[in-house]
Amino acid sequence: MGEFDLIDRFFTQPAKALYTPAVHVGIGDDCAVLQPAPNAQLLVSSDMMVEGRHFFADTDPYRLGHKALATNLSDLAACGATPLGFTLALALPKVDESWLDPFSKGMLALAQHSACPLVGGDTTSGPLTISITVFGQIPQDQALLRSGAKVGHDIYVTGAIGEARAGLHLLEKRWECNNKPLRDHLIRRLEAPTPRLAIGHHLRGVASSAMDLSDGLRGDLGHLLKASQVGARINGNALLSTAPRLWMSAETSAWTETQKIAFAMAGGDDYELLFTAHPGFRAYLTELGQELGVGITRIGEVLASLDMKVVDTAGQICTLETASFDHFKSCSRA
Amino acid sequence: MGEFDLIDRFFTQPAKALYTPAVHVGIGDDCAVLQPAPNAQLLVSSDMMVEGRHFFADTDPYRLGHKALATNLSDLAACGATPLGFTLALALPKVDESWLDPFSKGMLALAQHSACPLVGGDTTSGPLTISITVFGQIPQDQALLRSGAKVGHDIYVTGAIGEARAGLHLLEKRWECNNKPLRDHLIRRLEAPTPRLAIGHHLRGVASSAMDLSDGLRGDLGHLLKASQVGARINGNALLSTAPRLWMSAETSAWTETQKIAFAMAGGDDYELLFTAHPGFRAYLTELGQELGVGITRIGEVLASLDMKVVDTAGQICTLETASFDHFKSCSRA
Repeated sequence: MGEFDLIDRFFTQPAKALYTPAVHVGIGDDCAVLQPAPNAQLLVSSDMMVEGRHFFADTDPYRLGHKALATNLSDLAACGATPLGFTLALALPKVDESWLDPFSKGMLALAQHSACPLVGGDTTSGPLTISITVFGQIPQDQALLRSGAKVGHDIYVTGAIGEARAGLHLLEKRWECNNKPLRDHLIRRLEAPTPRLAIGHHLRGVASSAMDLSDGLRGDLGHLLKASQVGARINGNALLSTAPRLWMSAETSAWTETQKIAFAMAGGDDYELLFTAHPGFRAYLTELGQELGVGITRIGEVLASLDMKVVDTAGQICTLETASFDHFKSCSRA
Repeated sequence: MGEFDLIDRFFTQPAKALYTPAVHVGIGDDCAVLQPAPNAQLLVSSDMMVEGRHFFADTDPYRLGHKALATNLSDLAACGATPLGFTLALALPKVDESWLDPFSKGMLALAQHSACPLVGGDTTSGPLTISITVFGQIPQDQALLRSGAKVGHDIYVTGAIGEARAGLHLLEKRWECNNKPLRDHLIRRLEAPTPRLAIGHHLRGVASSAMDLSDGLRGDLGHLLKASQVGARINGNALLSTAPRLWMSAETSAWTETQKIAFAMAGGDDYELLFTAHPGFRAYLTELGQELGVGITRIGEVLASLDMKVVDTAGQICTLETASFDHFKSCSRA
């Protein structure tokens, strides 16, 4: 099966069925041609995933296809954008239909769910590498940025923070968990994150700053604080309350509160949103979380002092020595 | 040197100096935010280049940086688009400053020349892989597509067709050439193609169909004819006239005309434009080529019969058995 047949069967034909009215020309010409809304601004984000670095060789291909797109959509969500489409550049060591079939299905199912059609790309032979660029649109000057956090604003996260890292530790055999439902849940959180597009959309005009959590709350919040030139106080107990399934379980009962907080702060792969908002939005955000069925948890506040304090239940400052996940360190299985 | 320092030094800081007014938010947030012209359509193209597949490990990094962006800009040129910006996803086996410095300089020099700023991306460790997505814009419904060729229209190419393939054969040691200026010229044509953005822009409203030549004229013209549901007659002698330096040289004097035509038809990496236009544009296109200093050569005509005929100087039909370049075949040095 040649390159063109392969693209056609697993990507082009299924992708064409998902085109939105914004796709003027899709796959098959030199460029895709998209029609943004009148006077919309265009948002763009690119991510690259390499086997053995961002995922294990035996990762379920359906979930891998989902995650490769999900991590990019998460960037659009963090800016409050509406998806327009994406391109996929894929290097494959061989043409393995039993892998390509579920991989493309996982990716295109999320594309359909997110109204984000595949509009172009490239396929080549090479070490397994997935490079996606996603495009979105937003009315002029409404994009949520990292730089807008104001002193006195609340700090929020969506979803359960730290679960994805716990899933990674299970796969790396750095942690044991014999509770199968919990184990499956944590690995699913690592392998199949849900981009928070609906929440991001509703945060337009509400969040003063926002970003997605990919490298761990500690490092990512550091980037947001630096961009906004402010500091923060994080309530460790509130952070742990986002993931009761993990932190209230028997499997973590031997951990100290500080260990749990440090773990949650240093976890990568959450793909949840981190944002700040004026305190006047508290009731609105509680209702929004209930309406969308996703936890939106206030975990701290923005301070003027240019540092990040994390306090435990007793109000004591926690010392967190674990570093943020760095993609230049090895991700191979221990 | 960490990932973030690396990106900052070689890409972010030099890239910021090249931002156009269309870059509302550049590198450093979750997404770049771009402002297209009012009611413009957005054009998108992605390409991936893998070491040992699309380029040799010892390729000059300045030229490689140039070429990685040039091949993408060539897709915008083929559609007649004006560049808006690009993203770069880069997997690197190690952080080698002596490689990154010229690589980034080659890429960003072309970005500057083309008014196409680098607005975002991703860097990771992994086998050397360069994945670029480029965005452009064009007034509504003016994009040049592959599907508009009409019976009776002329077929044109820009530049010198087959030279890049000759350069590849030199590097692969499949061909000898002791004429050093010619040898250097041919290798430069392979390694440092010039995207035909200015010509593409002037072809809006002139070309009835267009595409760029990346996989070889024979295969690429086949795609254009199929998309337009027409056939073609190619004048092999006119095709050879595009590259007098190669085909009039002593080094190729032993080749038959058919061998030369077959070679030029099957060459990859030309990154020139192939387009069709109404015969009424002949004088206009001759002047355009002179004005822009680039050859624009009429090499054939569009026919109703759904096949591709190539004729030699005597009017005889040439039989070309050489296949188009397929990226799933090996590109390693012989």
